[in-house]
Amino acid sequence: MTKAIQSSVQVGELATGHALTVPLFSFSGSNSSAPSVYIQANVHGAEVQGNAVIYQLMTLLEGYQVLGDIRFAPLANPLGINQKSGEFTLGRFDPITGVNWNREYFDHQVDVDAWYSDHQHLTNDGLFLAYRSMLVEACRARLDNPFGISTGHRLAVSLQTMAHQADIVLDLHTGPKSCKHLYCPEYDIDAARFFSIPYTLIIPNSFGGAMDEAIFCPWWQLTQYALSQGREFSVPVSAFTLELASQERIDLADALEDAKGILAYLSYRGVIANKINPAKMVRFGCYLRDYKKFHAPKAGLVEYCAAVGKPLTAGQPLVNILRMDLYGSEQVYQAISFPMDCVPILHFASASVHQGTELYKVMTKVFAIPST
Amino acid sequence: MTKAIQSSVQVGELATGHALTVPLFSFSGSNSSAPSVYIQANVHGAEVQGNAVIYQLMTLLEGYQVLGDIRFAPLANPLGINQKSGEFTLGRFDPITGVNWNREYFDHQVDVDAWYSDHQHLTNDGLFLAYRSMLVEACRARLDNPFGISTGHRLAVSLQTMAHQADIVLDLHTGPKSCKHLYCPEYDIDAARFFSIPYTLIIPNSFGGAMDEAIFCPWWQLTQYALSQGREFSVPVSAFTLELASQERIDLADALEDAKGILAYLSYRGVIANKINPAKMVRFGCYLRDYKKFHAPKAGLVEYCAAVGKPLTAGQPLVNILRMDLYGSEQVYQAISFPMDCVPILHFASASVHQGTELYKVMTKVFAIPST
Amino acid sequence: MTKAIQSSVQVGELATGHALTVPLFSFSGSNSSAPSVYIQANVHGAEVQGNAVIYQLMTLLEGYQVLGDIRFAPLANPLGINQKSGEFTLGRFDPITGVNWNREYFDHQVDVDAWYSDHQHLTNDGLFLAYRSMLVEACRARLDNPFGISTGHRLAVSLQTMAHQADIVLDLHTGPKSCKHLYCPEYDIDAARFFSIPYTLIIPNSFGGAMDEAIFCPWWQLTQYALSQGREFSVPVSAFTLELASQERIDLADALEDAKGILAYLSYRGVIANKINPAKMVRFGCYLRDYKKFHAPKAGLVEYCAAVGKPLTAGQPLVNILRMDLYGSEQVYQAISFPMDCVPILHFASASVHQGTELYKVMTKVFAIPST
Amino acid sequence: MTKAIQSSVQVGELATGHALTVPLFSFSGSNSSAPSVYIQANVHGAEVQGNAVIYQLMTLLEGYQVLGDIRFAPLANPLGINQKSGEFTLGRFDPITGVNWNREYFDHQVDVDAWYSDHQHLTNDGLFLAYRSMLVEACRARLDNPFGISTGHRLAVSLQTMAHQADIVLDLHTGPKSCKHLYCPEYDIDAARFFSIPYTLIIPNSFGGAMDEAIFCPWWQLTQYALSQGREFSVPVSAFTLELASQERIDLADALEDAKGILAYLSYRGVIANKINPAKMVRFGCYLRDYKKFHAPKAGLVEYCAAVGKPLTAGQPLVNILRMDLYGSEQVYQAISFPMDCVPILHFASASVHQGTELYKVMTKVFAIPST
Repeated sequence: MTKAIQSSVQVGELATGHALTVPLFSFSGSNSSAPSVYIQANVHGAEVQGNAVIYQLMTLLEGYQVLGDIRFAPLANPLGINQKSGEFTLGRFDPITGVNWNREYFDHQVDVDAWYSDHQHLTNDGLFLAYRSMLVEACRARLDNPFGISTGHRLAVSLQTMAHQADIVLDLHTGPKSCKHLYCPEYDIDAARFFSIPYTLIIPNSFGGAMDEAIFCPWWQLTQYALSQGREFSVPVSAFTLELASQERIDLADALEDAKGILAYLSYRGVIANKINPAKMVRFGCYLRDYKKFHAPKAGLVEYCAAVGKPLTAGQPLVNILRMDLYGSEQVYQAISFPMDCVPILHFASASVHQGTELYKVMTKVFAIPST
Repeated sequence: MTKAIQSSVQVGELATGHALTVPLFSFSGSNSSAPSVYIQANVHGAEVQGNAVIYQLMTLLEGYQVLGDIRFAPLANPLGINQKSGEFTLGRFDPITGVNWNREYFDHQVDVDAWYSDHQHLTNDGLFLAYRSMLVEACRARLDNPFGISTGHRLAVSLQTMAHQADIVLDLHTGPKSCKHLYCPEYDIDAARFFSIPYTLIIPNSFGGAMDEAIFCPWWQLTQYALSQGREFSVPVSAFTLELASQERIDLADALEDAKGILAYLSYRGVIANKINPAKMVRFGCYLRDYKKFHAPKAGLVEYCAAVGKPLTAGQPLVNILRMDLYGSEQVYQAISFPMDCVPILHFASASVHQGTELYKVMTKVFAIPST
Repeated sequence: MTKAIQSSVQVGELATGHALTVPLFSFSGSNSSAPSVYIQANVHGAEVQGNAVIYQLMTLLEGYQVLGDIRFAPLANPLGINQKSGEFTLGRFDPITGVNWNREYFDHQVDVDAWYSDHQHLTNDGLFLAYRSMLVEACRARLDNPFGISTGHRLAVSLQTMAHQADIVLDLHTGPKSCKHLYCPEYDIDAARFFSIPYTLIIPNSFGGAMDEAIFCPWWQLTQYALSQGREFSVPVSAFTLELASQERIDLADALEDAKGILAYLSYRGVIANKINPAKMVRFGCYLRDYKKFHAPKAGLVEYCAAVGKPLTAGQPLVNILRMDLYGSEQVYQAISFPMDCVPILHFASASVHQGTELYKVMTKVFAIPST
Repeated sequence: MTKAIQSSVQVGELATGHALTVPLFSFSGSNSSAPSVYIQANVHGAEVQGNAVIYQLMTLLEGYQVLGDIRFAPLANPLGINQKSGEFTLGRFDPITGVNWNREYFDHQVDVDAWYSDHQHLTNDGLFLAYRSMLVEACRARLDNPFGISTGHRLAVSLQTMAHQADIVLDLHTGPKSCKHLYCPEYDIDAARFFSIPYTLIIPNSFGGAMDEAIFCPWWQLTQYALSQGREFSVPVSAFTLELASQERIDLADALEDAKGILAYLSYRGVIANKINPAKMVRFGCYLRDYKKFHAPKAGLVEYCAAVGKPLTAGQPLVNILRMDLYGSEQVYQAISFPMDCVPILHFASASVHQGTELYKVMTKVFAIPST
C-alpha cells in the first residue's frame, strides 16, 4: 500500500498576515523512468468537484503500484475558494482587479531559436532536463520580481512552478452548469480516449493564458523547432484541463467515475503498474473554432430548455425568456434558439440575465473520436 | 375575457438618475364587495420563480370571471434583481448596508387602545375603512420623512402602501435550494389547505419584519383588542408568504401548478366566480418554534445528502463534509447528521462553507393538516 | 520595561479549512486589585486605524508601570478584514448573510431578579465574581450550541468571552468619513473627559447589539436591581466604543494621540501607575436621540460640502447633488441643507448615491462637557 | 448663447427589462469645417469627476462661439455607476465576468493594405470620409453579431460608434488615489501643452484596449501606410484619456480648472472661436515603458507616505506596512521604498492589502514638456 506524504506550499499572504497555503500530497513512484504527474483542483473558487476527484484518486492509488511520482494540489486557490458574495463563491476572478484566476499563468515566450542553438549538442534527455530547468527557473525569477507581482500572478506562477516539474499535468475545473468536457491540445488528441469524459474540445497548441497551455506550449514550440532543425521527438509533456460538470457541487460517487478515467490515462502512460481500462463510452470532439458562445440577445428571466450534453437541432429552443414588464405583448415570453445543430456544453448559472450575458456555450460540427 | 391594465410605481432612484420602477398589472373585479388582492414577487433578487407564477396566474385569470380587484407587482425589487456578483444574483440584501430587503417593512406599532377608543362608534365596515386609511397614511408619511428614509425602507414601504389597500396579500418568495413551503399566521391556518404547497410553517401573529407580518399584525391586534372590548369579528385581512422552491430557477410548468393553487384559494375566498378545487395532496404543518436552523459545525466542502421535502430519520446524514487539508486523518470525510427526526425544507446554495454557515433548515414535530 | 506576551484565539474556520485566528497580546499587571482591560480593534474590516492605536499603546506601555492586566486583540475580524470587493474592504457585514459584524454580540437577557435572589448573600467582590463567571459561562455555552451558531455570532461571542473577563473594555472603530467620536453610556459620562476625542455620543444603558452594550448592560442591570433592593454600588464595568476618524486609513502620528488619550483614561482608572493627563481640548456631548441620520432625498453625484467635526448652521449646505441627466433644468445642481444647527460627525464614503443612501450623521443640541 | 440639445442612447438592458441609457448633450457648431468633438465620462463607475468637468464645460460653452460640433456623454456606464458593493462603487469591471469596462472596445484590425489599395484614388477628404464610414459600420456590425456580444462589449462599442464620428475624442477617467495625468499617444504629444494636467504618459500608437487607442490606432495605421506609399498627411483624429485626480470625488471648483484646460485645447484646435490660453504650469512627460507598477511585497496595513504628484528620491518610503501579528519582531512596522527616483502618480485606495496588491504606480525618467 502506497501512502501520500503531506506538505504545503505558500502562495500568498492576506491583509491580516495569514499565509495563503495550498495542501500538497505526494506519492513517490518506484520507477524513476516512469512519467511524473501533477494534478491540481479548484483554481476557480466555486469549482470544487475536482477536490472530490482527487480524494477518490488518492484513495484508489493507495491500492495500486505507483511507478511515477504523483503530486496533488487540491484547494489550489485558497483566496478564491474562501471569497463568498452572498450564498455563492465569487471565485472566478480576483475580487480586487477582476482578473480571471485562470489567466494569470506565465507566458514564457521562450526564444527557442537561441535556446536550441545553445543546447542542441545535448542528448534528448539532457535537452529536456535543461529545458525544464530553464522553465522552472524562469518561474522562480518571476516570483522574485523586484517590483513585485500581482496576487493572482503569484498564485498562478507558484502552481506553475510545481507543474513544470511534471511530465503530465491535469488541471481540474468545472463549468457553471455544465456537462463534462476536456480541453485537449491538438497534438495530444489521442489521450482523449481514456478519460471518462464524453466531449473533447481540441485547442490549438498555443498560449491562451490557462495552466494547460502554460505547460505544453513551450514544449510544443521546442518540438516544432527541433523538427525544423531535423531532429524529431514527441512533445515530452502532456497537459489537459478537465471540466468535471457543474460548479458548487460535490458528488463523491460521480467523482469516483472521473478518478477511474484519470487512472485509465495514467495506466496507459505507465504511471501506475496496474492495467486500468477506460470506460466504454462514445466520445465526441469539436475544434475550438467551432465552439460558440451565445450571448443573451435581450434581457429577462430565463428558463433553460436545452440540456447540457444532449444534441440539439437547429431551431429548437435554447431558452425561454420571460419579460414580465412586457406582459400584454408578444414579447412577454419568447423562445430563443440557435441557428445550427449543436451540443450545448454549458449554460449560465443564474435565471435572470442582462442583455449580453453568455447564456450557452455550444459545440458545433461535432465528430466521434475513435475508441482505443 | 378580463384583461390586465398595466401601470408602474416608482420605488427609488439610482445614482445615475434612472428611476427604479416596478411594473403593475391590475384586474378590475366586477363585484365591489369581493375581497381585493395584492400579489408581489421577487423582493429578493434571486427569487424569480414568483414572476413565472404571476405570468401563469394572469394568463389563467383572463379566462375567469374576476369579482375582486387584483393587483400584481412582479419584479418588485429592481435594484435587487439587477445586482449581480459573479454569476449569481446578490439580491438578498442591500449591497451597501447589508440589510435584508425583506426586513425593511414598516412596523406600525399602532396604539390600538387609543385608536379604538376614538373609532369604536363606527360600524365594522366603517371601522375597517378607517383603520386601513390610517395604515396607508402612516406609510405615506414614512415616505415623506423630512430626514429621508433608507433605500430599502423606501422600497418596502412603497410596496406596503399598495398591499395595505388589499384584503388578501401574497408575497412570492423562494428558498435557496428548497421545497415549497408556506408561511401562515396561526389565526389563518385554515388557508393552508388550498395552496399547492406541501409544508406550512405556522408563525405567531406578531411582527418580525416581513411583508406578510407587516400586513396582518395591525389587523390581528385590532381584532384582539376589539374582542377584549367585547366586540367580535374575524381578522379582516389575510397575508401569506409562499416559498416556491429554489432561487435562480424559472420553470413555467411548475409555475402553473402554483398558479392553480393560488386560484383555489382565491376561488374559496370569492375573488373569482369560478370554482377551483385545491390540488389533492397531503399537507403538513410545523410551528415556527420547531423550525430549526442547522449551522455548519466545521468548515469544508459539502455534499448535500438529505433531499428537501423528504422526511429524514434522526442520525441519517444531512451532509458529508470533505476536508482535503485533513486527508490522511479520519476528519477528511465526515457525515453530519441531525439529532432528531425532521423534514429538511431548504439547504445552503453553495458546496463550500465556512464554519457557522446555515446548512439546512428543517421542520421537526411535523403534523398532518386536514384537507378541505 | 514591560513586555507583551503573544498568543492567539481561534474564532472560526474558512471553507478551505484554514483557521480564522486573532492575535492576542497581554500585559501582566503587578497589582491584582487594579482594573483589568480588554481592547479590540478592526471588527469592521475597513476600520483599521484602531490597530495603529494599539501599536502605539503597546509601544508606550513598555515604558510604563502596568498595574492591571491588559489584553489587546487587534485585527479582531480576520474574515472581514480580508474580504475585498474591488479596491475597498467589504468588511462591514458578513458577505453571505449581510449581517453587520457589530450586531452579533450575545444579549444575555439575564433574569437579574432570580440571579440576585440566589446570590445576594455574597459580598460585593463575591457577587461580582459570580456574575462575571455566569456571563463568561453563558458565552461559552453559546459557542457550544448543539445546532451550531452563525459565523458572525461565533466571532462576536468569542471576542465577548474575553471582554467579559475585563473591567474596562474598549472597542476601537472608525466611521466612513468621520471625525473622532466616542460612544459612552449615560452612567459613565465622566469618562469622556479623558480620551482625545472631541465629540461624545451619550447612549442609553441598554442593549443595541454592539460590544460595549453587550458588556455594560448586564452590569448596569445588576446595579439597578441591587439598588432597588437597597444595595448600592457603582457599575463595576466600563465599556466604550471609540470611533477614531475615517476607515481605510492608517496614520501612525494620529494613532499616537489616541493612544495617549486612552492612557490618560487608564491612568485615571489606576491601570498604570504613571500619571498621564488628558489632552487639553474642548469636548462636546450629544444624546443619542439627538443624533440624526440624513438620507439622500434624491439620487445623484455628491459634493460633500460640510466638514466633519465643524458646527454647521441650519440651512448651510451639507452636500451639492449633481444630476447630469437633468442638465438644462434647475435640478442639474442642487444644494441640500439640514434644517437645524448641527455638527456633522460622519458622511458616506462614495461620491455617487442612490436615493435613500445615508449621507450624513449629525449631532444636534450639542453641549460642552466640562473638563477634569 | 449656445444651448446643448439633449438626447440619449441605449447601451444595454437590465434583467428587469429596464433600458441602460446614457444621456447625450450636443452643441451644434457654426462652421462645418471645424473639428468635431466627442467627450465621455464615468466609464469606470467610481470615476465620477469627469461628469463635473462636463458640467463646467457645457456651462462655459454656453458663453462661447462654438464652431465644431461637440457631443458629451456623461454617466457613460450606467451599469457600472449604479453597482455598489458596500459603501463604494464597484465600477471597474463587469461584476459577472470581471472584465475591465475599459478593455472592451473593438479592435478593428483593419487590413489597411487592402483597404488603401481600394480607396487610394480618393482625395484626402474623401479618403478620410470613407475610412470613418468603414470604422462606424464595423462597429454597427459588431452590435448586430448573430451570436450576440457581451454586456461590456455592447456598452463599449455603442460608445465607440459615437466616438468614431468625431475628430477629437476625450475620455475622462480618474485614478484610485491619484494626481492628474494624461494618456497621450506619441504622435500627438504636442497636445499635452494645453490641458491643465501636470503629468503626461506618452503611450505607443498601438491598441491596448482603451477608448483612446480604439479611436486613434486605425487612423495612425492609415497614416503610416499612406506614408509608406508616398502620401503624407497628419493623423486626422486625436484621442486622449484624461485622469482627473481621484475616484469617488466630486469637486466642482477643481472641475472648472480642468474644463478650462480642455477649452484651451479646443480653442487651439479651432473648435471654438474664442481664444483660451492654457494654464501656466510646468508639465512633465514619461514614456509608458518607464511607468512602473509597484506590488506589495508583503501583506499588511498600509500608511501611504509618498504624496501623489510629488517627486520622490530613491530610498524614501512609499509606504509603511504595519503587521500587528508580528508585534514583538522588527517586522511589525516596516518602511518600503522604491529603488529609483520617481514621481508617484497614483496609489491603491484601501489601507489594508494582500501580498501582491498594486500599491503605487510611479513615473520614472520624467522630463519637462516645453510650453507653448
